[in-house]
Amino acid sequence: MAEDLATLVTSIGRRARAASLALAATTTAAKNEALLRLADAIDAAHAPLLAANQVDLAAAAGHGLAKAQVDRLTLTPERLRQLAESVRQVAALPDPVGEVLENWVRPNGLRIRKVRVPIGVIGIIFEARPNVTIDCAALCLKSGNAAILRGGKEIFATNMALARLIEQAFPKDAVQLIPTPDRAALDTLLKLNAYVHCIIPRGGEGLIRFVAENSTIPVIKHFNGVCFVYVDQAADPAMAESLVLNAKVQRPSVCNAAEQLLIHAGVAESLLPRLGRALTKAGVELRCDRAAAAILAKAGVATVPGQPQDFTAEFLDLVLAVRVVDSVTTAIATINRDGSGHSDAIVTADPVAAHHFQAEVDSAVVLWNASTRFNDGFEFGYGAEIGISTDRLHARGPMGLRELCSHKFLIDGSGQLRS
Amino acid sequence: MAEDLATLVTSIGRRARAASLALAATTTAAKNEALLRLADAIDAAHAPLLAANQVDLAAAAGHGLAKAQVDRLTLTPERLRQLAESVRQVAALPDPVGEVLENWVRPNGLRIRKVRVPIGVIGIIFEARPNVTIDCAALCLKSGNAAILRGGKEIFATNMALARLIEQAFPKDAVQLIPTPDRAALDTLLKLNAYVHCIIPRGGEGLIRFVAENSTIPVIKHFNGVCFVYVDQAADPAMAESLVLNAKVQRPSVCNAAEQLLIHAGVAESLLPRLGRALTKAGVELRCDRAAAAILAKAGVATVPGQPQDFTAEFLDLVLAVRVVDSVTTAIATINRDGSGHSDAIVTADPVAAHHFQAEVDSAVVLWNASTRFNDGFEFGYGAEIGISTDRLHARGPMGLRELCSHKFLIDGSGQLRS
Repeated sequence: MAEDLATLVTSIGRRARAASLALAATTTAAKNEALLRLADAIDAAHAPLLAANQVDLAAAAGHGLAKAQVDRLTLTPERLRQLAESVRQVAALPDPVGEVLENWVRPNGLRIRKVRVPIGVIGIIFEARPNVTIDCAALCLKSGNAAILRGGKEIFATNMALARLIEQAFPKDAVQLIPTPDRAALDTLLKLNAYVHCIIPRGGEGLIRFVAENSTIPVIKHFNGVCFVYVDQAADPAMAESLVLNAKVQRPSVCNAAEQLLIHAGVAESLLPRLGRALTKAGVELRCDRAAAAILAKAGVATVPGQPQDFTAEFLDLVLAVRVVDSVTTAIATINRDGSGHSDAIVTADPVAAHHFQAEVDSAVVLWNASTRFNDGFEFGYGAEIGISTDRLHARGPMGLRELCSHKFLIDGSGQLRS
Repeated sequence: MAEDLATLVTSIGRRARAASLALAATTTAAKNEALLRLADAIDAAHAPLLAANQVDLAAAAGHGLAKAQVDRLTLTPERLRQLAESVRQVAALPDPVGEVLENWVRPNGLRIRKVRVPIGVIGIIFEARPNVTIDCAALCLKSGNAAILRGGKEIFATNMALARLIEQAFPKDAVQLIPTPDRAALDTLLKLNAYVHCIIPRGGEGLIRFVAENSTIPVIKHFNGVCFVYVDQAADPAMAESLVLNAKVQRPSVCNAAEQLLIHAGVAESLLPRLGRALTKAGVELRCDRAAAAILAKAGVATVPGQPQDFTAEFLDLVLAVRVVDSVTTAIATINRDGSGHSDAIVTADPVAAHHFQAEVDSAVVLWNASTRFNDGFEFGYGAEIGISTDRLHARGPMGLRELCSHKFLIDGSGQLRS
């Protein structure tokens, strides 16, 4: 059985590799037509998709899913309309493939062009969000990659129904779903170096860690973030209040939401009470160091004593760690030590402090007077996003269509020999 | 003991991470001064370096090294002069760090800059070439990265002597050598995700495979190549002869040397005997498919019947597989199936065939009328090379200073909130 499964997954890999060579040479028009076919097919298949989704929802309690997870898993007619619309938006984006990135001539007359090409075959491992299935299929096709999708058992029936639509709309084997939730299939996929060029896990930290530790194929990780907002001595008070609030409460469950506030000692007495009142009014629990707790207590704002682990924590909830720091230098060192290198912001009217912060904070996105929530492919103007890479190789920060591509070098000569 | 070793390697990692944050902010002038100090130190230390190298050479027989390996391990005064010179050349290269790669403004007024920054901490795993120790140290410093070097036991004494010079010349902990050849140290290093951001193995296929399979840190692989030259129907005969010869015999032991010749059936009768005579005269053994063998036999050129494995083999020697193909389409399919995606060339006077070949051959470097040997950082004009990546993510093809870098995004706002 395990052997049959390995054979099956290997055969999926071999077909994906063949498909990827064809896709690399497929025209933009043909790719866009396939995307529009898929969008239309989703619009026309609400009934079977919702029925399949009901099968997964009926099993959700058995899988022990929490309420938020069940919500993410649930399809509705409105969500299906959004899914189809997102596929049409990908069709409307420019094709990243074929762009000449660099072009130079060597003294010996060789002309070298660096050209953007698809990566090849991408394995996407995800948990229980139907939009990941469709988004990844659309983005991989548009960027000329073949994709192998492996979703969790919680979403198996929904995925099989979506996969049928994808298969009918897309070129042969362009996107294949592994047709079993068996874990052994994942083990085979993660070691299929002969056919698969890149693995992208989308899901919780446990899934990503498992994939990173077990894959022999290069992985692009999308860990969540421990994001900081540092309110400098020279911060505009009103801007500090609105930015800290937006970064924390606008959508607390996502990776670019703020988890910690650092405030300069020079303005903590005057500004922290205002920030604390606004945050607690918005339902945020404040876990404070001693200095912050003392200031807030004097101002009558309720706080919780922060434990050591709170100051490196990703809460993904209406909780914020708060510390007082003595300088921008200390803020930078604190963020580089206790943060996760995701998205960190400074609020200040002082350009010198801002430049210092942006130069030395070692994070994918470093913001000056803007919310951490802007680390996002759509907000960057990429038009689509497959995730936010927390790696430093290949892609760092938002991953759009271009980040799903590699490059190759074309060299034109006239008989040059190496000596 | 194993636990002490894990503690030691972890402490090296922690110090490297701290050093990397300082290096990211180090000026170009300070980095160049350190490089020139190292070059001078090598020039001044011939006696102790040669003495240390003698220790390794005396042990080489005990390690079972082949003659070519002993040669690579051997230092001479001339090689030491070259080493120092290569460090001076790195000092003379432009600093890749800080360049603004992209710069745009969003409709909401946010200004986004993509800026080149060092990767962080790079672990280099290599076997027995002293020039790798020095080259990697110099390239990592120039690109603002901290490096942890781990060489093989065959080169241990030489490395320790080189490491002393590096430590004296470079900023604190910028380049650290793991001071033991114990394999357990490597196992710890490959899982030190908290401090190390990238692993680059330099050496034979066995080493690279071991590292790729055991590292939980992203690896950039430098496998060798199964490179093809395809001689098209419209090839200029004299150019075909010189290119095939150059690609095969100019340095047969390296990854960008040709391992296989494909020739179009339309010119095989007329051209293959000429190529075969030139190759055998240069000492090349020809392992042929039936069609090529028959043509060469008629012309009196000695051949060896090719076995199936010869047609996917990397010989790294004066051996060439030879096959006759019926079209450029078959040549492309053959290369994409049996090659390794490294460096493949077409020889033709027909631009249509050349464009078809360059568009569809899925290799890092695809050459038209030029030798496969040009897939090389120096030949590309990069001024230095840490290797030739056979991966598709981050770097593909020659890796110079820019490929040792990542990027970050700096966003400047005026209080923008996400809604």
